[in-house]
Order: sequence, then structure tokens, then C-alpha cells
Amino acid sequence: MKRRIITISRQNGSGGRYIGETLAKELGITCYDEKLMDMVAKESGFALDYVEEKGEKITGSLLFNIASSLTYANNVFSGNGMSLQDELYFVQNRVIKEIAEKESCVIVGRSADYILRDRDDCLNVFITADEKSKLERAVKYYNMTEKDAPAILKKNDKARYNHYKYYTDQEWGMASNYDLCLNSGLLGIEGCVKIIRSVFESI
Amino acid sequence: MKRRIITISRQNGSGGRYIGETLAKELGITCYDEKLMDMVAKESGFALDYVEEKGEKITGSLLFNIASSLTYANNVFSGNGMSLQDELYFVQNRVIKEIAEKESCVIVGRSADYILRDRDDCLNVFITADEKSKLERAVKYYNMTEKDAPAILKKNDKARYNHYKYYTDQEWGMASNYDLCLNSGLLGIEGCVKIIRSVFESI
Repeated sequence: MKRRIITISRQNGSGGRYIGETLAKELGITCYDEKLMDMVAKESGFALDYVEEKGEKITGSLLFNIASSLTYANNVFSGNGMSLQDELYFVQNRVIKEIAEKESCVIVGRSADYILRDRDDCLNVFITADEKSKLERAVKYYNMTEKDAPAILKKNDKARYNHYKYYTDQEWGMASNYDLCLNSGLLGIEGCVKIIRSVFESI
Repeated sequence: MKRRIITISRQNGSGGRYIGETLAKELGITCYDEKLMDMVAKESGFALDYVEEKGEKITGSLLFNIASSLTYANNVFSGNGMSLQDELYFVQNRVIKEIAEKESCVIVGRSADYILRDRDDCLNVFITADEKSKLERAVKYYNMTEKDAPAILKKNDKARYNHYKYYTDQEWGMASNYDLCLNSGLLGIEGCVKIIRSVFESI
């Protein structure tokens, strides 16, 4: 079946979000990134900050998080038998499925590759970059200092890995989960856009 | 620096070896796969069967293998303080480095991406495929039965993962280890050759 949807997962600092935005603009379709978070915030009633932070990250020990969600499920965190993070995941899940049903689009992050795994019209992409390129982007675009950036980038990727592992039982960043993985440090941002677009239009 | 060498790592059944051979033919360079194993067998004195089987696979428990290599290093397995598998790895390591120094080429498997990690003229590729495509290739080209193929493919990939993990301390198949990862089930064998060639010639 012709691919209609591109999911872009990405290492922090790899430029994956920008690649998604550029690609969507070139293809004349919507890029769901900030817009997706707005929709999830509206649908769930959670603050936008919470959605941004917890929608694809689990920080701290994975075991601790699992234990917390089991222990407190029915009392402290939520009124419907789920932890707040689980509740957020399920709303996000529903919103992503509704978007995919409705229109051709680019979806950045949020485990969309996994959430849409039963569809046969998705092209799943993962963007990596070498440490040097990620560091340069982090300092230039994300307002990080050269000193702090390596630890922050690593921590963010670890939190994304934990989130993905927890909700999908798969390894975030493992090539076999995606159709196309690209090193933007070597290929360049424009190079990545060109390759993804060419693949998207040819399959 | 202009890329001169393409390393191709691949899931069993993904057609990665065939992609490497086709690519090398199109580019007019040598594909080191069986030829590499011949050279390693000759250089090491090991039987070709042993080189083929143990040069990129560790079967059984990883811990057991590590324990074996530590325990028996100086007596049972080898006369030079290494297990036979370690000795094979180091010869393979040396041969791959010599080839890379000498000529532009394609190298299939054998952790070549890691062995050549200090060079800046390698394009590192990983080929995956969906289960259905791998199964079809396994039955059609590798003489496996439809019943046995899933378990054999899984076991072979696990053995490659163990070998890579043991010698590189990295995760085999993790996108961040490669420049380009492609799903040959979706993109087709010819599609993969085309994308790799286009990237190789443009960077």
C-alpha cells in the first residue's frame, strides 16, 4: 500500500524535528510535533509542559516507574485506575491514531512508529548523528552550553529509550524497528530530507 | 573525507550479502565476503568452516563464552594466551584493516564497521527486513524449510549480536552504530542498492 504517513523518531540533537518540519513543508502536509502536543494537552486536560516532558520520556529508574504505576494506580495519581503517565500515553495513542486515519502527515517522536504498527501505510524513520554534530546543534539551537550538552543529550535519549521500552517492550533506536535510519551528521539535514522524500515518493 | 569503503552488516535473511555483491559489481570494486573468509582461513590456519561459523557468531550463553575464554586462555585452546575464537577475531581484524588500507571495497559482516571505526572513509550500512520477507528469502535461497526458518534466522541473528557485543561492547543493529539502515523488505534489494550507491557517490 502506498505510504501516506512518515513517523520520525530521533536522537536528541540529531535535527530530526527540523527534518520532519522541512519534509512536511516540501510535501505540503502537516507536521505533527508541537501541534500534536497541543492536541494531546487539550484532549487530556494535562498542562502543555507536562505533555511535552512526559509524553515521550521516563526519567529515573525504569523499575521505579513501573513500581510507582502499579502501587499508586488507583489512588494518588489518577481517578481511573492509571498513573498520570499511563493516562497521558493512552490519550496520545488515541490522538495519533485519529490523525493517521484522517490525513497524510509527518509525526515526530511519541512512539508513533509503534502506535501505528498495524497500519501498512507508514514509513518509519529514525535519525541519528555523531556526537560532534549533536553537540554543535545543541549549542547552536537548543541553548545548551558546550560543557553541559553531552550529559543533557545523553539523559534525554535515555529517557526516550526508557519510555519506548516501557510502553512498547521494544528497543528504541534498534534498526529493525524502522524502515530507514539516517546519520544526519554525515548526510546533512538537507541530505536526509532528500533521501526520505525520495523513498516516500517511490514506494 | 570521501568515502572509499562500504561496510554492510545485515540481519540473516535480509539479502544484505547479495546487496553488497551487487553494489560492488556496479561500483567496479571488490566485495569481501567469501573472499575475506578465504584470506582469514589462509592467514590464521583455521579451517574455512570454522572461520565462516565463528568469525561473526557466538552461540550459547555470552557469559559462558566469556568465562571459557578467561578460564582456558592459556592452556586448552591456544598456545598464545588467547582462546581460538579470540585468535580468529584478531586475525580477521588485521586482514580487514589491511584490505581497507589498500583499496576501495565492500565488506560484508565481520564487525567491519567497528574494526574500521577510526577511519573517516567508511560508509556503514545495516540491512534489516520484516519477518515475512526474511522467511521468504530463507526458504527460496538458503534451503531452509518454512517450519524451521524462523527459529534458525533468530538464532543466527542472536549469535551475531552476541559476537558483536562481546568484541565491541556495542549493540549489533542499533541505528546509532551505522550511517544508513534500510529495510530491504519494504525498499527491495534493488532499491537498497540504489540508495546506498547514491549516498556513497554523493558524500
